[in-house]
Amino acid sequence: MSVTDELLANNAAYAATFTGPLPLPPAKHVAVVACMDARLNVYGILGLAEGEAHVIRNAGGVVTDDEIRSLAISQRLLGTREVILIHHTDCGMLTFTDDQFKADIQAETGIKPPWAAEAFADLDADVRQSVARIQASPFVPHTDQIRGFVFDVATGKLNEVA
Amino acid sequence: MSVTDELLANNAAYAATFTGPLPLPPAKHVAVVACMDARLNVYGILGLAEGEAHVIRNAGGVVTDDEIRSLAISQRLLGTREVILIHHTDCGMLTFTDDQFKADIQAETGIKPPWAAEAFADLDADVRQSVARIQASPFVPHTDQIRGFVFDVATGKLNEVA
Repeated sequence: MSVTDELLANNAAYAATFTGPLPLPPAKHVAVVACMDARLNVYGILGLAEGEAHVIRNAGGVVTDDEIRSLAISQRLLGTREVILIHHTDCGMLTFTDDQFKADIQAETGIKPPWAAEAFADLDADVRQSVARIQASPFVPHTDQIRGFVFDVATGKLNEVA
Repeated sequence: MSVTDELLANNAAYAATFTGPLPLPPAKHVAVVACMDARLNVYGILGLAEGEAHVIRNAGGVVTDDEIRSLAISQRLLGTREVILIHHTDCGMLTFTDDQFKADIQAETGIKPPWAAEAFADLDADVRQSVARIQASPFVPHTDQIRGFVFDVATGKLNEVA
């Protein structure tokens, strides 16, 4: 049995006590942008319930065109106003460089990825840079309530850095 | 008090009973790509615990360069092997077209986004297309265990479509 099959069995248990459907727009008018890291249960960390917030996640919790696309849709079509950015301690993005990662892929496949890997060396600085990328975008209309945090994977606490 | 302040108070309660840290690599060697929709609590839907799976999310749960970047890092550096894709019923991406969304932004800001909005008209077909995008990428090494689902926001069930 694959892990996916095991998780599908969990889904049957979830559905058995499910009460839905909820409305489409997030009730708390907030969008979260967080790292994909397995230790970040965003619903747990922020005490969110189903239906309350958009959750956008990727390697690093960084802001690329795809996060701008998601935030533009979130704010323009679904009414969110606040943005919470979450990086975290012990992040994999601190362990490599874009150049090395892309060179390794090129050595193996013959093709260099045309995108940036978005590795970073300083957590706080990259949170601030992520906030700046959102503020610099012409496509995200509401940028006055963006706050940035580093989640501590040892303590469970969010520490504000931007 | 902003919503963010309210969620930070929730975080204090979460940290009070937190037991960490867990290892960085996902224990179940699986990455989930899901829509950012507020009603999709991925940890709940799949019965995942902290530390078990990478969770990648965006508007639609679609696969763009940024999801390829995240999956490449997930598989190459952190050992995941299975991929679970999740779209869902009543998705906002079914309610507009790329052309209209981008024309509206251009009318308001004077600038047409250079990226696709990734709207779609058929849920099952877009899940299949997302699987195909991953399989077509030279940068994601493990593509033999990719499965795609539509989450039903009325019942809580995952229905397999790819």
